[in-house]
Amino acid sequence: MTHSPQAAQSAAASPIGRMLRPRSIAIVGASPTPGALGAKLLANLERNGFGGAIHLINPKRAEINGRPCLASVDDLPEGVDVAVLAIPQPAVLDAVRALARRKTGAVVIFSAGFAEGGAEGLAQQQEMARIAQEAGMVIEGPNCLGSINYLDRVPLTFIDTDISAAQAAFNRAQPSIAFLSQSGAMMAVVARTLADRALPMSFAVSTGNEAASTIEDYLEYALEEPGTRVLALFAESFRHPQRLLAAARQAQALGKLVVLLHPGKSSAARESAATHTGALAGDYAVMRAKVERAGVVFAETLEELGDIAEIALRCQNLPRQGLAVVGESGAFKALCLDWCEELGLELPVVQDADSPALREAIPPFVALSNPLDLTAQGLVDPDLYRRTLAALLGDARFNAVVISVIQRDAIEVKMPPIIQALRESGSAAHKPVIVVGLDEGADVPAHFIAELRTLGVPYFPSSERALRALQRLTALAERSFEGSGSAPAALALPAHRKVVPEYEAKALLAPAGIAFGASRFARDVEEAVAAADALGWPVALKAQSEQLSHKSDAGGVALNIQNADALRAAWAQMQDSVRAYDASIVLDGILVERMGQRGLELIVGAKNDPQWGPVILVGLGGVTAEVIQDVRLLDADLSQAEIVAELNRLKSAALFHGFRGAPVLDVAAVAALIERLGQVLRGTPAIREIDLNPVIVYPQGQGVLALDALMLLE
Amino acid sequence: MTHSPQAAQSAAASPIGRMLRPRSIAIVGASPTPGALGAKLLANLERNGFGGAIHLINPKRAEINGRPCLASVDDLPEGVDVAVLAIPQPAVLDAVRALARRKTGAVVIFSAGFAEGGAEGLAQQQEMARIAQEAGMVIEGPNCLGSINYLDRVPLTFIDTDISAAQAAFNRAQPSIAFLSQSGAMMAVVARTLADRALPMSFAVSTGNEAASTIEDYLEYALEEPGTRVLALFAESFRHPQRLLAAARQAQALGKLVVLLHPGKSSAARESAATHTGALAGDYAVMRAKVERAGVVFAETLEELGDIAEIALRCQNLPRQGLAVVGESGAFKALCLDWCEELGLELPVVQDADSPALREAIPPFVALSNPLDLTAQGLVDPDLYRRTLAALLGDARFNAVVISVIQRDAIEVKMPPIIQALRESGSAAHKPVIVVGLDEGADVPAHFIAELRTLGVPYFPSSERALRALQRLTALAERSFEGSGSAPAALALPAHRKVVPEYEAKALLAPAGIAFGASRFARDVEEAVAAADALGWPVALKAQSEQLSHKSDAGGVALNIQNADALRAAWAQMQDSVRAYDASIVLDGILVERMGQRGLELIVGAKNDPQWGPVILVGLGGVTAEVIQDVRLLDADLSQAEIVAELNRLKSAALFHGFRGAPVLDVAAVAALIERLGQVLRGTPAIREIDLNPVIVYPQGQGVLALDALMLLE
Repeated sequence: MTHSPQAAQSAAASPIGRMLRPRSIAIVGASPTPGALGAKLLANLERNGFGGAIHLINPKRAEINGRPCLASVDDLPEGVDVAVLAIPQPAVLDAVRALARRKTGAVVIFSAGFAEGGAEGLAQQQEMARIAQEAGMVIEGPNCLGSINYLDRVPLTFIDTDISAAQAAFNRAQPSIAFLSQSGAMMAVVARTLADRALPMSFAVSTGNEAASTIEDYLEYALEEPGTRVLALFAESFRHPQRLLAAARQAQALGKLVVLLHPGKSSAARESAATHTGALAGDYAVMRAKVERAGVVFAETLEELGDIAEIALRCQNLPRQGLAVVGESGAFKALCLDWCEELGLELPVVQDADSPALREAIPPFVALSNPLDLTAQGLVDPDLYRRTLAALLGDARFNAVVISVIQRDAIEVKMPPIIQALRESGSAAHKPVIVVGLDEGADVPAHFIAELRTLGVPYFPSSERALRALQRLTALAERSFEGSGSAPAALALPAHRKVVPEYEAKALLAPAGIAFGASRFARDVEEAVAAADALGWPVALKAQSEQLSHKSDAGGVALNIQNADALRAAWAQMQDSVRAYDASIVLDGILVERMGQRGLELIVGAKNDPQWGPVILVGLGGVTAEVIQDVRLLDADLSQAEIVAELNRLKSAALFHGFRGAPVLDVAAVAALIERLGQVLRGTPAIREIDLNPVIVYPQGQGVLALDALMLLE
Repeated sequence: MTHSPQAAQSAAASPIGRMLRPRSIAIVGASPTPGALGAKLLANLERNGFGGAIHLINPKRAEINGRPCLASVDDLPEGVDVAVLAIPQPAVLDAVRALARRKTGAVVIFSAGFAEGGAEGLAQQQEMARIAQEAGMVIEGPNCLGSINYLDRVPLTFIDTDISAAQAAFNRAQPSIAFLSQSGAMMAVVARTLADRALPMSFAVSTGNEAASTIEDYLEYALEEPGTRVLALFAESFRHPQRLLAAARQAQALGKLVVLLHPGKSSAARESAATHTGALAGDYAVMRAKVERAGVVFAETLEELGDIAEIALRCQNLPRQGLAVVGESGAFKALCLDWCEELGLELPVVQDADSPALREAIPPFVALSNPLDLTAQGLVDPDLYRRTLAALLGDARFNAVVISVIQRDAIEVKMPPIIQALRESGSAAHKPVIVVGLDEGADVPAHFIAELRTLGVPYFPSSERALRALQRLTALAERSFEGSGSAPAALALPAHRKVVPEYEAKALLAPAGIAFGASRFARDVEEAVAAADALGWPVALKAQSEQLSHKSDAGGVALNIQNADALRAAWAQMQDSVRAYDASIVLDGILVERMGQRGLELIVGAKNDPQWGPVILVGLGGVTAEVIQDVRLLDADLSQAEIVAELNRLKSAALFHGFRGAPVLDVAAVAALIERLGQVLRGTPAIREIDLNPVIVYPQGQGVLALDALMLLE
């Protein structure tokens, strides 16, 4: 029953590959009892015709199902590809040790009670990880449901699995979905709902506690499978953010789509994640900004995950803006207008004059519009569906089509002309089309749905779901990924500083191209007066000290000082105020700055996230904007055009564009400032944070000024 | 075939009732051709065993299906209850005239091509309306799909209808849903999706163009049917807003729920509604504020309409805040936390110490939490579901329970203990419970779902849908409807004014309890100086004229005037500016107002909407708030507590409550001002609009001041 060294070597080329495509499997805890995990696993392997070696380990039985049993892991041949542990928690760690000794390639551990179960469990999991690393062994789990390799029909799970039935149409060349999930339950749910939609799959993997092998490992592996076009992920926390981002970018380069369902938006969810999986949840917003930037589409619900995956798999191209919607009533049209406006889906306007083909397709008494209301006319003239769809598929203004029909009574009448149009056009493969049944719960003959799918057309049970999933994918297709292309800028940071006070921060950042108001640092009051004379009155005074991050709180800011007398008074008072605030603070001196013109206030912050890397936050200043959290979180490597696009996604973006007679503002200068800040952040990893607050935006052509600067260093 | 005068009289008690429960029906355009509208209608009546008289009119046939045909409407007996027109558009108006002559009670008109089809169609529809009014005749349509009376099995529609099959369990005493729709297509879709969910129905009506009878007529009628507990509506525009509101309030008083799907949020949808149905779409926001205030729940999608209706119908009580969620994985728990936080559904925290019953129900290694993650333990201990559900149903902290299970493999194991808990508790009827299948598309034995429904428990195919529908109903149940109770305040308005300038508006509103800054009206500059001396410096000057609604634009406002000299200069300049702005403006004089303290700026506006009645708009002032449209639209009859609740729904509401060290503001004074404005608006219908902009809010106990006032009159 052992196989050739060559085969083992080839399978072992990738440790994950060796696990998912094993030549030999050991079941530790094999059982003859129906319903026992070990029994279910064996039944799965037998049902799906696993052709490799199966080693059963059960010290109390000589054989199970006619297969001999080994008494102990120690009796295993060396180099079995994967061992699945169907044994209670307390026996797991010893089994892992023994399997490492037998040079087993991988271990699948179902048992819970490790990192998520308290200190002792955590220690056991860490020991397991140590063993795995030492032995070069893959560990799936613990606390997982195993995995399914649909391509080779290898179910390493106790969930009842019949791959031929679930994925009947499958072959290796066919585009397929890999579903990778940290949660076993979600694997059980999603893998099978996808199968129900006749979506071919390559792998379903539950990674559980990720003692040694993580979702990134499986993602990197699945990416290599050529037919796997969609990578659907459920994750609560990524252990290797940079590898995740690299894999996502690689997927994009390969024309593959990664879609992710990731709870943790709410503070409560973050707490739950921390306690449940034993993983520290990263900052959700930072994670999301970075992961979206790597080309990943986020789903918000289980349905959406499947909906997005289905469109991405079946349609040859992603939808772009320019949607045509076809329905059969004015009411549906009105509903779609609401939904599309809310989702930001653009519906190109069609008129008689500019749409001769469409005009010819529909009867004169049907008004041209988008959404198009075909009325009930299709019941007496079913070919209307074919003509309409053909006209829309041939119309370059449209990059996606949703056609929503009432199914009951007449689906047999409506479907053939729709299918005919799709078949004849040949372009259905290039322009995403979704057919939707408007009346939930209607029986639609399966052969219609199958024919649509053969033509690369998903059949959806709800217009809202179709539009929502289209929107997520459209947003991706419309997003720019050009990036800054600018060189990182390395600053020479002062030694021994944790906090870099304003005057030093400005001196560091100004040469990197950040525009500040004209200022001079003064060590005594007469230096300050001279500085003000040179800069021009009025001026602001700002107390400077590494110990004084929040100057205003300490009375360390005086604005609008008109002359030397006022400056001297302000200087004295500032010294007193700071002393009163905290007698231990020693001021380096005081920064004298020329008062600037007023303008729109932004807040701009930069952060080197230890997990995810550099990000920049930009938002509207002022208390109202703060309350509503009108901010965007940007990757630190965006092009200026991409930054402008992000600025325009602020809720208050209208303020940039001449709101209520105000001048149009210099958004380009904001983008330039943010790009330069990104260069600094990327080039100087020792910077933890930079705060420019506020940044004043002036009318177009007049630039921006940062009025304050604070840097925190490693 | 004619029936007794008594019966006719009883049915005629209500004209709509006579139409929906007819003793005699005429089919104008009866046809023997399968598929023809007239043939389908007759088949529907026969299939559903209509026992009354059926008169067929077809000039070319002696009989159809063994029933004699009349040659013309003129041959009909007098007083037939309802005639259904299955004839082409051009013949409709003559038929309506003839039916009126025969004293027919009601006419159902399927044909399109009336108000929505151009000027001629509109004229025909108006003529039809005139005839109907003169004859006291009900007209359903034109451009409708007819109606279905499920209670008496009368389908006046050509949609294939088999009431016994669709609504098998139905009897008159059973709680039921009436679905009233302006759209025929939506009637066809929703009535049958509801039937598919085994939801008993009383009526489905499509009102079409509403030439003579409107959705309000049918609503008033359906409300009278005792078993009809849920009124589900699809409308694009209400022709009788006040009757709609009255009916909605009556429904609430009767313990019935009205749920409404009403497109028109987007500007595009409003345009579409206007052109499609020939009805002028009202202002969506005003409509929504008023209709919600009347106790109506809004659905945003077709699914939601059905979901809300199902919960309202099956559960004896509406859900309130305090939701318990039960699932089988940490992943689901984390997802629910996100969804519930976004929806504003409160999940009471449970801990070991405060939850002995729940603690006892679940194994020690399952952590108590809400959402509760039962893990996969229920597979080996199915009674866990019963114990958990029993504990939650008996726990007064929870007012609703959602239990979400993975259906595949084990639904036969999980469902019996769930059903047992519901049956034993007896309280399921009082606390809404929804059972959800997490894995879409799984086959669940129908008898389980039927058993749940018998116990008053909806079975949902998606957790998100269950939570969303619960949220809509919870929001209703948590809303206060106490109202102001304050008396309307009638102002004696100046004659011949369209625009009431600030000084007069303040003089009118101040006695009604609106707080303004101290001010005096001055006709010449020395009067102004004296006024400022009396009020105290500094002051503001504001030019006053009926012709000057926007003072600032004309240079008609000067702030912060410190002394008499400055005042004289400002006075002269203001006269010049206004003259330069528009030489035709004659100033009444200038208002001198003491400069007030700064505070949070609100905008407050009041409006007597000609359709919907008085509403008050309140929002944050300032340009950012304006951009993000941070406003609420309130009924003018809210109690102060209700107004405070609305203020707290502003996106920037945190600013009221001591944001960032600012003082807590006098929200109670804002509420008092708004209540008083409502009294004025309700008591003085000739006021079209009042603008108080800005209203300054001071710290708690220090009240509010309106700094400006403008009134527009009829």
